[in-house]
Amino acid sequence: MFYEPSAGHGLPHDPFKAIVAPRPIGWISTVAADGSLNLAPYSFFNALGTNPHLVMFSSEGAKDSATYASETGEFVVNLVTRDLVDRMNASSIDAPRGVSEFGHAGLTPVPSRLVKPPRVGEAHAALECKVTEIVRPKGLDGRTGDRFAVFGEVVGVHIDEAMLDENGLFDIVRAGTVARLGYMDYAAVTETFSLRRPRWEE
Amino acid sequence: MFYEPSAGHGLPHDPFKAIVAPRPIGWISTVAADGSLNLAPYSFFNALGTNPHLVMFSSEGAKDSATYASETGEFVVNLVTRDLVDRMNASSIDAPRGVSEFGHAGLTPVPSRLVKPPRVGEAHAALECKVTEIVRPKGLDGRTGDRFAVFGEVVGVHIDEAMLDENGLFDIVRAGTVARLGYMDYAAVTETFSLRRPRWEE
Repeated sequence: MFYEPSAGHGLPHDPFKAIVAPRPIGWISTVAADGSLNLAPYSFFNALGTNPHLVMFSSEGAKDSATYASETGEFVVNLVTRDLVDRMNASSIDAPRGVSEFGHAGLTPVPSRLVKPPRVGEAHAALECKVTEIVRPKGLDGRTGDRFAVFGEVVGVHIDEAMLDENGLFDIVRAGTVARLGYMDYAAVTETFSLRRPRWEE
Repeated sequence: MFYEPSAGHGLPHDPFKAIVAPRPIGWISTVAADGSLNLAPYSFFNALGTNPHLVMFSSEGAKDSATYASETGEFVVNLVTRDLVDRMNASSIDAPRGVSEFGHAGLTPVPSRLVKPPRVGEAHAALECKVTEIVRPKGLDGRTGDRFAVFGEVVGVHIDEAMLDENGLFDIVRAGTVARLGYMDYAAVTETFSLRRPRWEE
């Protein structure tokens, strides 16, 4: 089947997020200028480069994470794993300003080393980030709507050493990393396979 | 453990891409101003918004996909699934300009409806996109390096109807969607679970 999104998809639910999947989850902790803490999951999240390590998360609507990150220029990306998935979900609640999702979800804010927002103490990995720019992605109509894409450079990395295998590789199956799919669906990584990138031979 | 990426990680391999994972794969087809075709996988790829449907892919180095997309303003995102993973990998080769990765990988270029780049005929879903902007993400040092983040709006969606379940939902397990992990690793989605997003109760 073929459809133009501007004209509607004709299905019971929009399949877009089931096609752009599985998406990594950036579980973003931020602190506002007034000291308010925020924690929320974003699946419009990914790396942008490795030299240096750049990441971005994108939100639609005036979400606290983008507002707080723009106020104080910092955020932390916490890893979502199977053992934390219910608390990740609890942190996605639209709580009133002043209610910390850390407390609501039963998570421990642990001070970061190089940035003000705390990391999730229970997370098996966390990336301390400084905002490099905030992009307002435009549609073809030239409008930015209320989309905010927050770009940042990773300045510090925390890893739970119990998640490193005997070769010093981060073991994503042992960690039980969880990804976002379409609809209300998620998946944990339970099995992996490897491919060697081919080289051109004359 | 904690490290600052600017000072090195002290591990045999950089764990960054194993932490920002699993990443969806945008298998990007483009056509140059001179008509050359390109097809290559990018895992620094995700949605940026749903209203309208925006996606982005990011490359480091002067890769053909970004160059061609900037020349002609269009690209197609093809879905990578287990049945196509070896051909996806074959298309990642650094082939000389003028050699189409479609032919090299044994894939069928099928004309798109609304954009010039062909889609991968074998893919179970494809997104026809028009470039909205090309961002050069900066690091904290203010340098863009040779990073290119290509943003686009989805103008057309192809779905293999055999991948829709009886409720009209895109069945990612049936499709066998593949994601990129760290190192040389990949995972296919074989099992999913659902979570209902909580609501704040006064």
